[in-house]
Amino acid sequence: MSLPTILSLPSPFPLENGQQLPGLDIAYHTYGKRAADDSNVVWVCHALTANSDVFDWWAGLFGPGCLFDPERYFIVCANNLGSCYGSTGPLSQNPEQGTPYLHDFPLVTIRDMVRAHEALRQHLGIAKFHLLIGGSQGGQQALEWAIQQPDLADNLALIATNAWHSPWGIAFNESQRLAIATDPSWREYAEHAGRQGMKTARSIALLSYRNYQTYGRSQQTPDIQQSDNFPAASYQRYQGEKLAKRFNAFSYWALSKAMDAHQVARDRASAEAALAAVRARTLAVSISSDLLFPPEEQVYLAEQIPDAQYASIDSFYGHDGFLTETQALSKVLEAFLRPGKPEALAEPVVGALAGVAGVL
Amino acid sequence: MSLPTILSLPSPFPLENGQQLPGLDIAYHTYGKRAADDSNVVWVCHALTANSDVFDWWAGLFGPGCLFDPERYFIVCANNLGSCYGSTGPLSQNPEQGTPYLHDFPLVTIRDMVRAHEALRQHLGIAKFHLLIGGSQGGQQALEWAIQQPDLADNLALIATNAWHSPWGIAFNESQRLAIATDPSWREYAEHAGRQGMKTARSIALLSYRNYQTYGRSQQTPDIQQSDNFPAASYQRYQGEKLAKRFNAFSYWALSKAMDAHQVARDRASAEAALAAVRARTLAVSISSDLLFPPEEQVYLAEQIPDAQYASIDSFYGHDGFLTETQALSKVLEAFLRPGKPEALAEPVVGALAGVAGVL
Repeated sequence: MSLPTILSLPSPFPLENGQQLPGLDIAYHTYGKRAADDSNVVWVCHALTANSDVFDWWAGLFGPGCLFDPERYFIVCANNLGSCYGSTGPLSQNPEQGTPYLHDFPLVTIRDMVRAHEALRQHLGIAKFHLLIGGSQGGQQALEWAIQQPDLADNLALIATNAWHSPWGIAFNESQRLAIATDPSWREYAEHAGRQGMKTARSIALLSYRNYQTYGRSQQTPDIQQSDNFPAASYQRYQGEKLAKRFNAFSYWALSKAMDAHQVARDRASAEAALAAVRARTLAVSISSDLLFPPEEQVYLAEQIPDAQYASIDSFYGHDGFLTETQALSKVLEAFLRPGKPEALAEPVVGALAGVAGVL
Repeated sequence: MSLPTILSLPSPFPLENGQQLPGLDIAYHTYGKRAADDSNVVWVCHALTANSDVFDWWAGLFGPGCLFDPERYFIVCANNLGSCYGSTGPLSQNPEQGTPYLHDFPLVTIRDMVRAHEALRQHLGIAKFHLLIGGSQGGQQALEWAIQQPDLADNLALIATNAWHSPWGIAFNESQRLAIATDPSWREYAEHAGRQGMKTARSIALLSYRNYQTYGRSQQTPDIQQSDNFPAASYQRYQGEKLAKRFNAFSYWALSKAMDAHQVARDRASAEAALAAVRARTLAVSISSDLLFPPEEQVYLAEQIPDAQYASIDSFYGHDGFLTETQALSKVLEAFLRPGKPEALAEPVVGALAGVAGVL
């Protein structure tokens, strides 16, 4: 990733749970040139372990020559509150102790993340968004923001996301936190605490990001004689090691807790009432094989948000498809943003290796 | 569970990987009265953490008043090699050290388990089985046995099982072993080593045994205001604690390795050739919502095993359905075993809460 800009706000930042942070750092990237009337602003909210450099992690959809080309759009992406990529998080200084928060970092929620984004928006003086977009936990933020400020975004794209995090999603996250807590280093007051456990956590998360077919295609055992050391097993370890090199266990824990706490109905009449408040022109997008945020969750969003459109990407990549299916996403989003009627979304858009059979 | 009988065989027991065990203990249960011509023998192979007391863990299908009633059938179930319920396993004495094997217990495979069952069969002098039946890892054993001894079983019931363990299944198992290995006690030479890690392992396994809908129904958050301590999270911890009270991490590790190594093609021409050798009248049964052993795996078995029948149970329980859907299983198995044509299996059998919508 390229280095972000850091906005440091000195005022106390109250959190949804009643605690407060003494101030707020927000790491962010902008790309392209902003139109005088803000008509070309695309604001991207990122998911769990991503960062503010959207050209890095959503290449193919964002970047020169892509649908969201900086020649045309002014693109903003801010690192999530709680992350370890520049915004305030568990590694930030706890002013009461003069040392990093680590275990004492308070519970942050999707709404807290949105309020941090909102502080950045006000700082940048952006009046409105042409498009507010996010997938997975990024979609949870985009949705909350559109509920809280119905006139902020002209268009809203919610990809592989939900109105509240499911018991199934919470169970996956809890298993990951159990894995972190089992790491003996987790009790140490040290930035590296829980790193070994986070490797297991990542290997669990991967299972929810993919599915039987994805593993069947990519991790098949080449030698039928083998009775140990299978590629699928090495792959789980490899992915754990890979994340451990770039992410922090305290942030991982905090962000997974924020995801669990996502519930648009909290402090509101109902989920339906919350979603009915959205006034942005909305598109909800499913990845057909997504086990973690299954299509019924985006169908529900499209049903409840006034005049929302729905698109399905027929893909075998599972939840990861929201990151990898950039061609299909470009097609769907281009059709959604094109002036006129959105017939192009009536049929599922075929993603890479769609409809592929299993390993059998 | 009621106490098993233990058969102790003093001869060395060679394993598929070239190592050998100095002798073999096989814990087993029998129920009912054996017919003189062995025409009423039902042999049950059990799955991962179960035991030889099939009346205990498969109640509803096995027991007085059930389809497999001891008044009618002579039922045998042996504890799997590698388990901690009486058969030789990691807690058995390593004669080289005079202390339990623990970390040094050799890799055992499904074929090794089958050869241990075969030793018991010979000891009991059972000439043939009316039915050989197993689900999940129990099905892997039943299948291997029917391939190795095509004339042993008249009927074979393979439930929620496969011809080789999938990369997806291996990835799930590896994440569980990573969780065990992260437990600092895992390095201790002690029977309780890895217990904390096994709790996480069980919570991961549960995710593969169930699915989005199962959690959506049973672990919904009652209070929409909640932002932490969700039922789905407590449930994962509770299930981990529950297993830790009754199972051993070394056995858990060994059995998950055995499952990974399941491959009917090993040392044979191909999986198709191996399956073509089965001569038992075979029924393959799927649970429609099974994520871990998805229906395509049992469809494949039914396609490859000569004249095999196939039945699907329409259930929302996921892989766990092979244990819980005893009514539907009784219906399917009763139809399969009934003399005459098996039309009853053409349509999916409706299980409990079948076709239930998600939480939305």
